[in-house]
Amino acid sequence: MNPDLLRERQNATFDIEKLTNILDGGAERTNRRREIQSLVLNDPDFDYGNPNFLSRSERYDQAVKKSAHMILKLREYGISDPVEINWYKSMYWGTGREALGLHYVMFLPTLYTQCDSEQFNKWVPLAQSCTVLGTYAQTEMGHGTHLRGLETTATFDPATQEFVMHSPTVTSIKWWPGGLGKTSNHAIVLAQLYTQGKCHGLNAFIVPLRSMGTHMPLPGIVIGDIGPKFGFDAVDNGYLKLEHVRIPRENMLMKYAQVKPDGSYVKPLSSKLTYGTMVFIRSLIVGNAGIVLSQCCTIAIRYSAVRHQSEIRAGEAEPQILDYQTQQHKLFPLLATAYAFLFAGQYMIDTYNRISGDINQGDLSEMPELHALSAGLKAFTTWTANTGIEVCRMSCGGHGYSRSSALPDIYVEFTPSCTYEGENTVMMLQTARFLMKSYRQVQAGQQLSGAVSYLNKVHHRVMAPQAVSSQLDLNLNTLVDLYEIRAAMLVELAAQSIQQESARGKCQEDSWNNSTIDLVRASDAHCHYMVLKMFRDKVDQIEDPGVHSVMSTLAHLYAIHGMGNFTGDFLQAGVLTGAQVPSVSKCLKGLLAEVRPSAVLLVDAFDHHDKMLNSVLGRHDGNVYEAMFEWARSSPLNRTEVHESFHKHLKPLQAQL
Amino acid sequence: MNPDLLRERQNATFDIEKLTNILDGGAERTNRRREIQSLVLNDPDFDYGNPNFLSRSERYDQAVKKSAHMILKLREYGISDPVEINWYKSMYWGTGREALGLHYVMFLPTLYTQCDSEQFNKWVPLAQSCTVLGTYAQTEMGHGTHLRGLETTATFDPATQEFVMHSPTVTSIKWWPGGLGKTSNHAIVLAQLYTQGKCHGLNAFIVPLRSMGTHMPLPGIVIGDIGPKFGFDAVDNGYLKLEHVRIPRENMLMKYAQVKPDGSYVKPLSSKLTYGTMVFIRSLIVGNAGIVLSQCCTIAIRYSAVRHQSEIRAGEAEPQILDYQTQQHKLFPLLATAYAFLFAGQYMIDTYNRISGDINQGDLSEMPELHALSAGLKAFTTWTANTGIEVCRMSCGGHGYSRSSALPDIYVEFTPSCTYEGENTVMMLQTARFLMKSYRQVQAGQQLSGAVSYLNKVHHRVMAPQAVSSQLDLNLNTLVDLYEIRAAMLVELAAQSIQQESARGKCQEDSWNNSTIDLVRASDAHCHYMVLKMFRDKVDQIEDPGVHSVMSTLAHLYAIHGMGNFTGDFLQAGVLTGAQVPSVSKCLKGLLAEVRPSAVLLVDAFDHHDKMLNSVLGRHDGNVYEAMFEWARSSPLNRTEVHESFHKHLKPLQAQL
Repeated sequence: MNPDLLRERQNATFDIEKLTNILDGGAERTNRRREIQSLVLNDPDFDYGNPNFLSRSERYDQAVKKSAHMILKLREYGISDPVEINWYKSMYWGTGREALGLHYVMFLPTLYTQCDSEQFNKWVPLAQSCTVLGTYAQTEMGHGTHLRGLETTATFDPATQEFVMHSPTVTSIKWWPGGLGKTSNHAIVLAQLYTQGKCHGLNAFIVPLRSMGTHMPLPGIVIGDIGPKFGFDAVDNGYLKLEHVRIPRENMLMKYAQVKPDGSYVKPLSSKLTYGTMVFIRSLIVGNAGIVLSQCCTIAIRYSAVRHQSEIRAGEAEPQILDYQTQQHKLFPLLATAYAFLFAGQYMIDTYNRISGDINQGDLSEMPELHALSAGLKAFTTWTANTGIEVCRMSCGGHGYSRSSALPDIYVEFTPSCTYEGENTVMMLQTARFLMKSYRQVQAGQQLSGAVSYLNKVHHRVMAPQAVSSQLDLNLNTLVDLYEIRAAMLVELAAQSIQQESARGKCQEDSWNNSTIDLVRASDAHCHYMVLKMFRDKVDQIEDPGVHSVMSTLAHLYAIHGMGNFTGDFLQAGVLTGAQVPSVSKCLKGLLAEVRPSAVLLVDAFDHHDKMLNSVLGRHDGNVYEAMFEWARSSPLNRTEVHESFHKHLKPLQAQL
Repeated sequence: MNPDLLRERQNATFDIEKLTNILDGGAERTNRRREIQSLVLNDPDFDYGNPNFLSRSERYDQAVKKSAHMILKLREYGISDPVEINWYKSMYWGTGREALGLHYVMFLPTLYTQCDSEQFNKWVPLAQSCTVLGTYAQTEMGHGTHLRGLETTATFDPATQEFVMHSPTVTSIKWWPGGLGKTSNHAIVLAQLYTQGKCHGLNAFIVPLRSMGTHMPLPGIVIGDIGPKFGFDAVDNGYLKLEHVRIPRENMLMKYAQVKPDGSYVKPLSSKLTYGTMVFIRSLIVGNAGIVLSQCCTIAIRYSAVRHQSEIRAGEAEPQILDYQTQQHKLFPLLATAYAFLFAGQYMIDTYNRISGDINQGDLSEMPELHALSAGLKAFTTWTANTGIEVCRMSCGGHGYSRSSALPDIYVEFTPSCTYEGENTVMMLQTARFLMKSYRQVQAGQQLSGAVSYLNKVHHRVMAPQAVSSQLDLNLNTLVDLYEIRAAMLVELAAQSIQQESARGKCQEDSWNNSTIDLVRASDAHCHYMVLKMFRDKVDQIEDPGVHSVMSTLAHLYAIHGMGNFTGDFLQAGVLTGAQVPSVSKCLKGLLAEVRPSAVLLVDAFDHHDKMLNSVLGRHDGNVYEAMFEWARSSPLNRTEVHESFHKHLKPLQAQL
């Protein structure tokens, strides 16, 4: 092992394994996770080499091969618990993407929840056996966020008992669904249902795309890959133009809405029953933002412990770059953020599971709050992680640009989560809508409970005076209170902006639009407060003194760093004075120095296996340079000593000049 | 033309062409630029298709072909003026990279400046005719920023009159130079010179790498491509391991330092003579940050005028997304920033040219200030643009992820500029060193001139009281003053941090390291002030009333947006009160609304040709969706209807389950 990393690890002040257990949710789960993941590590078929050396077509081919291979393996091992499948996948795919992802994440679940029993019996076995390979085609070239704007039509023809599926315009072409371009032979297509001369809005239809034997596109199906993207090379995101394609009436998913043989339409009882899945997926994204940040911190912090550069004190040896304050300032707040988001992800899933239970009992009361929180936190965590990945990458100097570092791939695979499953600005505004509603309730004299209960205090104007004190107190609990005050102030300012716009004679919608900058800020502050609170609450539960101590420091750093970034809000709220700002900065520096000795241990605790990270910079043994040289030598451009371009272009040029 | 764009353009409030002329530096230059660029547009050999459809090896091959082609074309057209060559290149390469870049940007200029006359006569003609194709090999795998740490050795052997070039460790392997892997047959290698048993530090040596006829690597030369990176697919950044390679004594570049035949070393007169080139290149990067942002704004703003989505007022048609306040808040400050950076780039080059004249007259007095400013501005503008590109990309929703938008390529080709030619944090600290020195001079009673003259006032403590007034005045000139106060405050706080650390008994270097967070902030604020000031000064020079008016609004927006982002600093400085903050926000919203009608015109004025942007979203005619569909259909994965992976992996899977 690299001597620097060895030294870092010899000075542990806490038990890493205990922290890993907390992340996993218990020692037993850590063990079981490692057991599952070792199945991948010990599988001789696992090693597929570096995907960065492949062309896009080869990457796609490899991903399909791996998907097929994985399905057989999971069956062979008898792994069927969703959590365990997830562990297996995390090691199997590393930072890469699954080719058949949408078949399992969208197609099958939609069949489960929206088929009537006859449909269920027909389609589910076909999909489970991969005879039918499906995807979920919702987004169109011209329509994403606004579902009501989708243009694809499904017109019922009672004469033949068929729906005619059609893309009437260029903008109506289905665009982006994963696996649509090449892999799937069926899709669930969202389309505007027309029957008996009337439009009944969006409904879901199973549309066969390719012939079962030959996989050739069926008549009227214009289908293909949408071309190269920023990342997702292994996935065939596709387009689908439907040219008067006829499907049987029974291919409309009929569990809720129905079209009878005579063409009459039966409305669904409630349109909010798919609500839960959305909340669940967004909650997963929150945790995933934490995982991805934890991977990047692992890479950047290990490398910063190995890399020596320049000098702090003249004449002394080049220090580890982790000893530079600027490097600590880049990485340690992100390390704290990674933990914060992992805990936030745990909280969201736990809450979802708890509330799902209530919903099954008919109690929907907590759902709006969870929905609002999941939307905002999805945006808050993915934006932060998105920026954070790039900070980690650039903290590795030139080598962060090499694909051997894995950081470029992590970025391009992660960044779409800022847009998919709800565009982030739209998400923030959904949360804002809940905050404004809550604020109005307080103004109307209602007492709020739950996450927004802090708004009760706004109305009574008791917060600011309470918080201001002559002595600046920056302990963690006080900081949580200050974030609460900040959020309350920004919620109030956003509400005031709407009121002022209305007072100027603007209609309700324009008043809203003219206040969206403030509304996004309010949501952001609300989410920031919630994440900090979850972090503090989690730390409070940790019993082991060593782990508790280091995690308290991290939570504290998370809070203080945010305060430094948003000093203006705290000053504006009157809970901080200009003269006190340098104390915040001093506190921050003290915390960075406090984290320094534990930094490598804190990333070790994430327990990311080398095979999963696939990064020469993030190796557990720190043998960075040898690995990088080996990686470069094996790259495709080095297969020949002289590239063909020399003979084709350079030699003739030299002769011509 | 798309009707939305047509409407936007019909309502021009100013003469676009006049603004384009200002950007070009006069109407004549605009015309000449277009003339040069039309040579590319009218060249049937120009159309190389979309590089995103090619493998890396094909992209490299294409770039070499284009480079060879371009050299012949420039010669054919007789274009030799550097500015005109640059115009030609900007159209010829678009957002892509030149394969022989380093040969022209580093190898030849180094020969020009560091060869003695004999060497000049030998090497320059060979390089000009591309018989010798060279690169510049400085960075090593383990050493970037800290040049003194480079490990490659050049040991003089008087017996044979040769230098023995050697890479003693893995970390000493040359790494990253562009064109080193496959293209170049020579390199200028930076190495520690040993002669007569003593090390004389870094010197430059011409090392032959590949045999002239066959292009095969010479004995002792272990050379290759460093593998795929984040962007720069077309460039063969390379590695070079030297295994006791002997080169004649005459291959050391001897204009300044020399090794005599007996092995005695002659020191160079000054080590600062290459200073100027560095300043010049960093100044170019500043302008380039503006160009790149202007490209991204062109793409995102045109697309936002064409794209319709969701609703602002219920029941009305889907609005252009450019009408959403949040979208304006993402894009218009970046539009203002693009102009700010373009003007800053002009200022830097003009100042460089003026000072270069002085230097030739022996007057070096302004050089330290320009050096400090170029370092800080390089970091300030590239960081801002780097983030800004991604904001533009994500403002385009899903389609921003498609490589057809050009935004992913723009990002990966630009982001390295945060690291090369001086790592940004290191650059900020270089500027900080100048600021601290200036501050100490003021404290010692000296009167400063030039960019840092505002520090004179810190000492006399006359700024804050002057600036605070009961009525909040947010006009542009006042804002420039407030930015000055902010910068002065942060410079002073950084200086105080160093002093406090020293007072706690820390040595000078540790005091510096423990204050680097503050020092980077101070530099950042200094650069922000300088850019705003240059913007204001430029606007003041504009005579045309229409252009002057719209550019004043943009400069104002640039200032107010920054104030909104750094409210904390202005509050801390006491030039703003918490109660006044909502006025800043209101002012910002007013400016966004003011820019809205001119937004499309302001990007049209950048005059980026469709062929150069190569973006389906940024098309001048706005026919976005048709172009996207066509692009996708022509992508390589659609060459066959059924991908081979179906027969190889999916069909067998279906049979097995």
